[in-house]
Amino acid sequence: MHTFAKKMDALQAIVEHRSVRKYKSDPIPEDILNTILEAGMRGANTGNMQLYSIVVTTDPAIKEQLLPLHFNQSMVKDAPVLLTFCVDVYRFSRWCEISETEPGYDNFLMFMLASIDATIVAQNCSIVAESFGLGTCYLGTTLYNAQEMVQVLKLPQGVFPLIALTVGYPAEIPEKTDRLPFDAVVHKETYHLPSDDEIASYFAQKENSPFYQQFVREHQLRNLAEVFTKIRYKQEDNITFSKKLLTALLKMGFMNQ
Amino acid sequence: MHTFAKKMDALQAIVEHRSVRKYKSDPIPEDILNTILEAGMRGANTGNMQLYSIVVTTDPAIKEQLLPLHFNQSMVKDAPVLLTFCVDVYRFSRWCEISETEPGYDNFLMFMLASIDATIVAQNCSIVAESFGLGTCYLGTTLYNAQEMVQVLKLPQGVFPLIALTVGYPAEIPEKTDRLPFDAVVHKETYHLPSDDEIASYFAQKENSPFYQQFVREHQLRNLAEVFTKIRYKQEDNITFSKKLLTALLKMGFMNQ
Repeated sequence: MHTFAKKMDALQAIVEHRSVRKYKSDPIPEDILNTILEAGMRGANTGNMQLYSIVVTTDPAIKEQLLPLHFNQSMVKDAPVLLTFCVDVYRFSRWCEISETEPGYDNFLMFMLASIDATIVAQNCSIVAESFGLGTCYLGTTLYNAQEMVQVLKLPQGVFPLIALTVGYPAEIPEKTDRLPFDAVVHKETYHLPSDDEIASYFAQKENSPFYQQFVREHQLRNLAEVFTKIRYKQEDNITFSKKLLTALLKMGFMNQ
Repeated sequence: MHTFAKKMDALQAIVEHRSVRKYKSDPIPEDILNTILEAGMRGANTGNMQLYSIVVTTDPAIKEQLLPLHFNQSMVKDAPVLLTFCVDVYRFSRWCEISETEPGYDNFLMFMLASIDATIVAQNCSIVAESFGLGTCYLGTTLYNAQEMVQVLKLPQGVFPLIALTVGYPAEIPEKTDRLPFDAVVHKETYHLPSDDEIASYFAQKENSPFYQQFVREHQLRNLAEVFTKIRYKQEDNITFSKKLLTALLKMGFMNQ
């Protein structure tokens, strides 16, 4: 067993998280990678059915094919390991068929439950990797081009790529990013519907940050909210990719009723 | 600051996870609970928009209303704290409106991205809680009766309950549950389509477990797969609750195109 370079307290590992986008080319020792993946699989999951799979991609040729599907985010080729966490009802359903009983897992409820389970696995992997001194970055772009990733990763019906994670030794330690105030996110007993003044106060720190203020000026926008609505997460794109995602879910066999 | 009773290595906390369903009545000290929630909020998330909220329920009267919606799982009333992790595009969208720009987050893509983000927050909370010696249990039942939970938790349009977590001091330490073999879940480079023989071998350990064998006998079933298809996760129920979930998503404003 490899001697792990670093061990870290759970709270510390979680609080010190930052997304790492620049990596050294050093490979991840196999025993470390396996420990990360095994820890991932200890996550709580629906009925212990383990309706997920993890595709571990290190081959530069395959990463090259995935790169444009992740909108050319350089981490895909620069990180030594790309983990793609997939919803997987194929394995369990086929086991039911072999056992001569009819599976009923090709529907939206099971997709959602398995998505939660697969994300828990992904976060376990991310935390353990970080506790070993590795860096990680989630790629939400997985859901934007899921059907194309199905082709590259050779996923059968009943398997759907949900979220990807790059893993490798960090070539930079970025600053921790800001978060909304505690009271903006945490509600006591039931949901507290915030007033407009409260909402304005929640976002005030973000709006006052020099980084964002410069971004707003450079792009000749009126305010920070427009950075999101007009540049980063535009309604028209969100609608286009929502339709594409629902079509892919239908095609891969998750909307049967 | 409270002196935490116990600190735990990240890998150990994750590998030692078990779902705790019996709790002591001892409350969770407020500083410990706040540390758990703050650690949750450090999770990676889409564009740092933090499209999630956490509802912290401790009031027995509210928990009593939630109990049947979680199919009377006793943890809901027995655990001192119930955390409901919600997708929340309300806060961010309203901020865009106040900023006089049109938000575009009431669609399925954003629901899925925010679901992943909210689950990452939940898993951070679960791991930190466990590292402090607390026990947790996920309640996937949240998605089964989401619309009814919206009423009890007073969630506005654009907020959707995704997953709940009970937290408290454990009154039992259950055995760790089994997992499929590593090679059943982890695929190298691309997806390995398993043969029927391979699938049978993946599930062999589970099928041979005395606990499951007794369950199969008691219910006069033919095999373990039927425990899932005929009792625990039946196709007809999955389809009923899939439709109900999609209706709730539409009603709460996540399917606008």
